[in-house]
Amino acid sequence: MRWLQRRVAAALYSSAGRPMNDAIDALRNADLPRVLRALALGETTSQALTEACLAAIARDAHLNAWIHVDADGARAAARASDARRAAGGAIGRLDGVPLALNDNFDAEGMPTSQGLPLRDGLIAFDDSAVAARLRGAGAVLLGKTNMDEAALGTSGRNPHYGDVGNPHLPGCASGGSSSGAAAAVAAGHAIAAVGSDTVGSVRLPATFCGLVGLKPTFGEISCRGMAPALRRLDCPGTITRSVADAALLLKVMAGYDPGDPYTRARRVPFATPDWEPGRLKVGLVSGLRGLGASPQVVDAFRAAVERAGPVLGQAREATLDMNALDISTSRHAALLLMEAEILAAQGQALAEGSERLRGLLAYAETRTAADYVRADRRLDEHVVEFRARFADIDVLLLPVAPGAPPAAGDDEPGNLADFTALASLAGCPALSLPLPGGLGLQLVGPRGSDLRLIELGEILQAVLGAEAG
Amino acid sequence: MRWLQRRVAAALYSSAGRPMNDAIDALRNADLPRVLRALALGETTSQALTEACLAAIARDAHLNAWIHVDADGARAAARASDARRAAGGAIGRLDGVPLALNDNFDAEGMPTSQGLPLRDGLIAFDDSAVAARLRGAGAVLLGKTNMDEAALGTSGRNPHYGDVGNPHLPGCASGGSSSGAAAAVAAGHAIAAVGSDTVGSVRLPATFCGLVGLKPTFGEISCRGMAPALRRLDCPGTITRSVADAALLLKVMAGYDPGDPYTRARRVPFATPDWEPGRLKVGLVSGLRGLGASPQVVDAFRAAVERAGPVLGQAREATLDMNALDISTSRHAALLLMEAEILAAQGQALAEGSERLRGLLAYAETRTAADYVRADRRLDEHVVEFRARFADIDVLLLPVAPGAPPAAGDDEPGNLADFTALASLAGCPALSLPLPGGLGLQLVGPRGSDLRLIELGEILQAVLGAEAG
Repeated sequence: MRWLQRRVAAALYSSAGRPMNDAIDALRNADLPRVLRALALGETTSQALTEACLAAIARDAHLNAWIHVDADGARAAARASDARRAAGGAIGRLDGVPLALNDNFDAEGMPTSQGLPLRDGLIAFDDSAVAARLRGAGAVLLGKTNMDEAALGTSGRNPHYGDVGNPHLPGCASGGSSSGAAAAVAAGHAIAAVGSDTVGSVRLPATFCGLVGLKPTFGEISCRGMAPALRRLDCPGTITRSVADAALLLKVMAGYDPGDPYTRARRVPFATPDWEPGRLKVGLVSGLRGLGASPQVVDAFRAAVERAGPVLGQAREATLDMNALDISTSRHAALLLMEAEILAAQGQALAEGSERLRGLLAYAETRTAADYVRADRRLDEHVVEFRARFADIDVLLLPVAPGAPPAAGDDEPGNLADFTALASLAGCPALSLPLPGGLGLQLVGPRGSDLRLIELGEILQAVLGAEAG
Repeated sequence: MRWLQRRVAAALYSSAGRPMNDAIDALRNADLPRVLRALALGETTSQALTEACLAAIARDAHLNAWIHVDADGARAAARASDARRAAGGAIGRLDGVPLALNDNFDAEGMPTSQGLPLRDGLIAFDDSAVAARLRGAGAVLLGKTNMDEAALGTSGRNPHYGDVGNPHLPGCASGGSSSGAAAAVAAGHAIAAVGSDTVGSVRLPATFCGLVGLKPTFGEISCRGMAPALRRLDCPGTITRSVADAALLLKVMAGYDPGDPYTRARRVPFATPDWEPGRLKVGLVSGLRGLGASPQVVDAFRAAVERAGPVLGQAREATLDMNALDISTSRHAALLLMEAEILAAQGQALAEGSERLRGLLAYAETRTAADYVRADRRLDEHVVEFRARFADIDVLLLPVAPGAPPAAGDDEPGNLADFTALASLAGCPALSLPLPGGLGLQLVGPRGSDLRLIELGEILQAVLGAEAG
């Protein structure tokens, strides 16, 4: 213990030297197990790491990744974490790790903008369930990251806080809606980030920024204290550098919360990943071109599946005809429900929204309660149709998006979320792995199969060499 | 086996004699275990029992309990059941038992009216999940019973098919919306009935007609092929003469159905009723008068709780302040959602609805999609508030309705479903036991505690002497 304290002290007081800075910059860009090891061994301190993150955030202001940086709060949390370690007391699972939080989650003492102009009185009095779990595990919340207005977009553009740059592919869109969360991790501002994924808002920016995105099974992570986008689909999700990081964050955040009506007291544990890849029935989406995928996406997907072949071994293949699911009708229905949700939740804040947002919502304003029900029933039908087609598939592989990241500032293609919406609409977990060029490979499984996706994803990430950066 | 066949034959050919008729009329009014025993022992046949039911239905046309009687189909099913028994083959759990089905469930070959005027082309091509389960267990479906228009009411009145009489308390309202189902069982037209319960539509008519009503945990019985009233609350439920009957029907009908998006593949089994009453924490609703309960209801409730005391033993008591739940705001929100659901589902059929129904729906027609979301979020809040107050209660006791059955033909009191809505809004199971005078005692438990309620209810039914008739 005394030994550890000495190491901590050494780290604290030697942070001026150049070699130390190189090391800490490497840590800023490392995955969670590496960071946790460094903290545990006293190679660095949470304060040193947090300062390095804050410095990087300040240096990269042009990325517009952050809406609110809580430097004082982060420093205090890091100090407290270092003190816990120094005292040899109990240490949380994420103790001292600087993280980023999408700005639709409340964090006590910080404003929540949801990407809309800030008004008075928006400082959160309580932590969201997600923020509470992360802080409870010892994490350092650096602040809140930028996002598409009201989570209604996939572009990474925001007229109030600036468009979010893509550190992984400069000149390309960062993707959305959790754009700042992805940019922050890609730029080494934070070790990992938590965003929200309604029809793809974690997986799309993660992919465009060369990172791993996880949208867990619906209802597994509480949405209490999160501004809703569409309650029947909303899932907190993770943006990380590795699949192992996503697994760790999921473990910290999942569980029943009486404050979220969609989490369940009668919770079924995640299925244990006791599979052998060779015995899985792997589904592939057929007719990708007809579904709007670009030739580049189709080629990259085929190549990835081919490279994954040896991992999957004797996996039996099935095809899923997404055309039959009429995903675009479902996505349009979901869009109406999201717009109505935002209208109901935001009220007057929307008057200060952009012309684009008000244009989107003007349509929803003309829709009746019965129109809402019809759209909602369409989503019910999607669940039933998806179940029927998915009954025989253990893991479905498909691209994350039908196209590569658009150029920064371009209008977002209307079908960008078609491939991510598939799992969202069915409440199923989905894991996205980055491929070169801002493309991505997506794994979808039945509800509760999150750990299987994660285990398979870890192996595939290694095989595909699909690492961040 | 030869012995059983002789008994069956004897029953078949001696049904003209007067003593036999007395016996069969007693069976028409017996509970399920008695009927199943009589069929198993060859004391009667399904055909004899079915004919007796059909005769009673014809005799009681003035009750307006039925919208469609499928005499030919019922006779064929009874004949097939008797043949199965005679052949000594496999016998279903409800083999040969004549049952009634509320007219918002599809049954192949029969029309589904939902209490609205019948149009062409409304003959169901498929069984609802409920009808399929019942038929699969060998039950004889006699036909479809009358109900409040579009399930939107609690009066038992119907302008198209006539007001449903109350055989248990002539001159009193039969209750609704599953009015015909309750009247049919109370009059001995069927051994038991399946209705639907959104905010009380099974428990209210069951109570008014002196019967037991069970609304299971939300999502445990599939609603596939059932006309929706409000999808997030809709539950098929049972109207029976005894709690044991409800248990048996629940067992036959519960389970995952991929065709109902609200049933779950990751299903949690019902909790086993391994309780000792004395160790339960029994909750009592406080301030019943302030919640609109009549003095008669309060007195009957107190008397029932007192008589139940010895059963509950050393049960610890807790009080639930329903005022804090603001149930009437939640019920109003649910009403708007139901109206919108009906508008969306029924379309032109509503033009032929009654003035009362069109009046109700005219309000919903003016509501926007955002209004729908606000009402839906109110129900989310109810779930959270209910969970917080219910966390420490194993079984909650409260009256079924705030008042006794209104006189037949009277307007229904606006708050009639306030006490039944409590469990519905929270997705919790509720069991209603009849008390004298059309009053009832309700048991509510947390989701999945259906079997505990049933076991406790069986004992309480015996203690309270609260039997049908």
